[in-house]
Amino acid sequence: MTQLIEARKGNITAEMKEVALQEGLEPEFIRKGVADGNIAICRNNKHKKIPPLGIGKGLKTKVNANIGTSRDIKELDCELEKLDVAIKAGADAIMDLSTGGDVDLVRSRIMEKSTVIVGTVPIYQAALETFNSGRPIFKMTEDEIFDGIEKHLADGVDFITVHCGVTKESVHRLRTEGRIMDVVSRGGSFLTEWILKNKKENPLFEDFDRLLEMTKKYDAVLSLGDGFRPGCIADATDRGQIQELLILGELTERAWDAGVQVMIEGPGHVPINQVEANILLQKRICHGAPFYVLGPLVTDIAPGYDHITAAIGGTVAAAAGADFLCYVTPAEHLRLPAVEDVHEGIMATRIAAHAGDIAKGVKGAWEMDLEMSRKRKALDWEGQIAACIDPDKARRLRDSAVPMDAEDACTMCAALCSMKLMNEGEDQKLVKK
Amino acid sequence: MTQLIEARKGNITAEMKEVALQEGLEPEFIRKGVADGNIAICRNNKHKKIPPLGIGKGLKTKVNANIGTSRDIKELDCELEKLDVAIKAGADAIMDLSTGGDVDLVRSRIMEKSTVIVGTVPIYQAALETFNSGRPIFKMTEDEIFDGIEKHLADGVDFITVHCGVTKESVHRLRTEGRIMDVVSRGGSFLTEWILKNKKENPLFEDFDRLLEMTKKYDAVLSLGDGFRPGCIADATDRGQIQELLILGELTERAWDAGVQVMIEGPGHVPINQVEANILLQKRICHGAPFYVLGPLVTDIAPGYDHITAAIGGTVAAAAGADFLCYVTPAEHLRLPAVEDVHEGIMATRIAAHAGDIAKGVKGAWEMDLEMSRKRKALDWEGQIAACIDPDKARRLRDSAVPMDAEDACTMCAALCSMKLMNEGEDQKLVKK
Repeated sequence: MTQLIEARKGNITAEMKEVALQEGLEPEFIRKGVADGNIAICRNNKHKKIPPLGIGKGLKTKVNANIGTSRDIKELDCELEKLDVAIKAGADAIMDLSTGGDVDLVRSRIMEKSTVIVGTVPIYQAALETFNSGRPIFKMTEDEIFDGIEKHLADGVDFITVHCGVTKESVHRLRTEGRIMDVVSRGGSFLTEWILKNKKENPLFEDFDRLLEMTKKYDAVLSLGDGFRPGCIADATDRGQIQELLILGELTERAWDAGVQVMIEGPGHVPINQVEANILLQKRICHGAPFYVLGPLVTDIAPGYDHITAAIGGTVAAAAGADFLCYVTPAEHLRLPAVEDVHEGIMATRIAAHAGDIAKGVKGAWEMDLEMSRKRKALDWEGQIAACIDPDKARRLRDSAVPMDAEDACTMCAALCSMKLMNEGEDQKLVKK
Repeated sequence: MTQLIEARKGNITAEMKEVALQEGLEPEFIRKGVADGNIAICRNNKHKKIPPLGIGKGLKTKVNANIGTSRDIKELDCELEKLDVAIKAGADAIMDLSTGGDVDLVRSRIMEKSTVIVGTVPIYQAALETFNSGRPIFKMTEDEIFDGIEKHLADGVDFITVHCGVTKESVHRLRTEGRIMDVVSRGGSFLTEWILKNKKENPLFEDFDRLLEMTKKYDAVLSLGDGFRPGCIADATDRGQIQELLILGELTERAWDAGVQVMIEGPGHVPINQVEANILLQKRICHGAPFYVLGPLVTDIAPGYDHITAAIGGTVAAAAGADFLCYVTPAEHLRLPAVEDVHEGIMATRIAAHAGDIAKGVKGAWEMDLEMSRKRKALDWEGQIAACIDPDKARRLRDSAVPMDAEDACTMCAALCSMKLMNEGEDQKLVKK
């Protein structure tokens, strides 16, 4: 059984009830969303110690943190600390993208410690092992690719990124258009090279049924990767990207027919005036499948601040219907994120998710801001701090500059505080009861 | 003479030529924009030691940094350091909002040291002096208000915020609607109280001609303040806010008729799905006058990160036509900004301005991202750092994690870098020449 199969039968599962409770919605709303493919419930059936996570239409926009070792930075403890920090900062999901040291060990420790769902990109490990064995990456075999996927699923990984839309056809379309940045997705570049050098079709596309079968067995969620996501503003929304999306749309329906839950991954680097169109396109072409975006980053020139460029695009994306935001940290384009980058990345992305939720009317979002505003109007500082997305940082900043002139104000306006002034006389109260 | 009067006569002034040069546009384009009221050239005719700044249609979106003492934090040196930091970080304009210590001295030192245009909100000083004299703020006299304005203009201040749209009519409309946060603009709250307690019309509205006369004398720019800007998501775009905007639209035309240049100030706290409508409304109602926005902040719950919430709204605003963004710092809602907050605030706001400029097709914006992308594709790290909005921060992050496995990559992907992989073989080059 899978959540999708049960939903289509009209059955409300324990997972659907749990997601409904988390979201403050009716179980039937969740069941219908899953049946329609608009909601994915992420949790591998071997990974029952964590709560399931609902991603999709009508639900709160979720936030993912990428962690994991690289070939340069391999310390397990550091990645486990990032896991802690990400979860404490409010990440809804973790992706382990390890490519350095003992990646099986890192993954198993992350699975053990994580209290939220875990995703991976299994082809990273297959590529790494090929590379480590002294062969060029394009020499990895179809069985190595699929065996790697099965291993991750058997470990209980809840969602896997698979770049099934990188095909001879989409590579061709990318090439006829031309690009400034080529392929910037790691998985996308492995498979593009694989197709071109081996002169064969992408096994993840060719043998998609094999992938569906193993994913179904664990009721994991397929996250159909965007191997051709634009890596710069100039490449956004080009024919290569959209060709891949069209293929992913077809694969989405094949997955649903097989009872497998699907998400679609999306860009990337996109100018702000193209973000909404990207969301509309994905929703239409993939028939409402949940959309998982990386950013989008609205400019290329802000390394060091890409948590901000991503939060900008992410807000507009979430407001337009994106369901799941992958964080970007200040380290993006410069280095593997350090622990402090993880915190900053999550906070910026949570802001984007929440600001999007206000706009798309997600249950409870508007009320959070209303609560803050009432505390602010009442000059209730403890209440304000408690209503903050990061109470610790808010308290730190407030405590660093204690108001003397007017204790209930702050050091910006002091006694000239507009709140104080307007609260003073009954005759000037503008608040409607 | 004023820039507007000359432009309407068909004369291209030295200031128009200088702005044209800064923007890479034709002087006639600037002249026509000024004549139409779509561009304001900011520089008081007593302040010729700094270059004039063009703000408006077709020009780069500009960024302002608010600095200045408060009653709690009065150190002059600290504000001068903020001035330095703001200008080094790329601020196009500074507002001195001092309300603590010797505010005349602070303003004169800022005017002396600033290499960019300076704006003020003269009524802050009038209110402060009234307060310091032991009278309630609403007791400030009409002459005290106007004399304060004249003093700032005579000091060479380039643009002044004046809340002329806070009138009996707009207060009435605000009251019939009701608000969660009342009036959060300081100037707005002073004048609302003034109107209600004195049962008289706002002198800045009633004697608008007096204001025009003194502004014209110095060819300063009137920045018509939004006393009723929403202070929370729930108050955005309400009848009080829009009533004030309608009045500002009328005053804009009166100013233009008198040969005085005008900008309009705008919100504030606005949900992301209302930002574009706010810009469209202002542009239509104020007949294309430049729009100067504070944020907008797209959620109320992120104190500590309001430079990000403002950058999100600011990007969408700039893309939709906002011309001038006032920075918001991480300290907003918590304390007077410290020096480090100023840097963060400017960087976030510059990102918003630039991302907006890409979308609205401002000359040169797209090319900056293209340049970065070409350096990135070539794995030219020095070139990438030089193309960054904050090269120092980018270098610091890159240098903190030196790649060992593959020197031309970074510690995130190392040898598994998609750029490296795609650059390797001629047969897989997708870049169109």
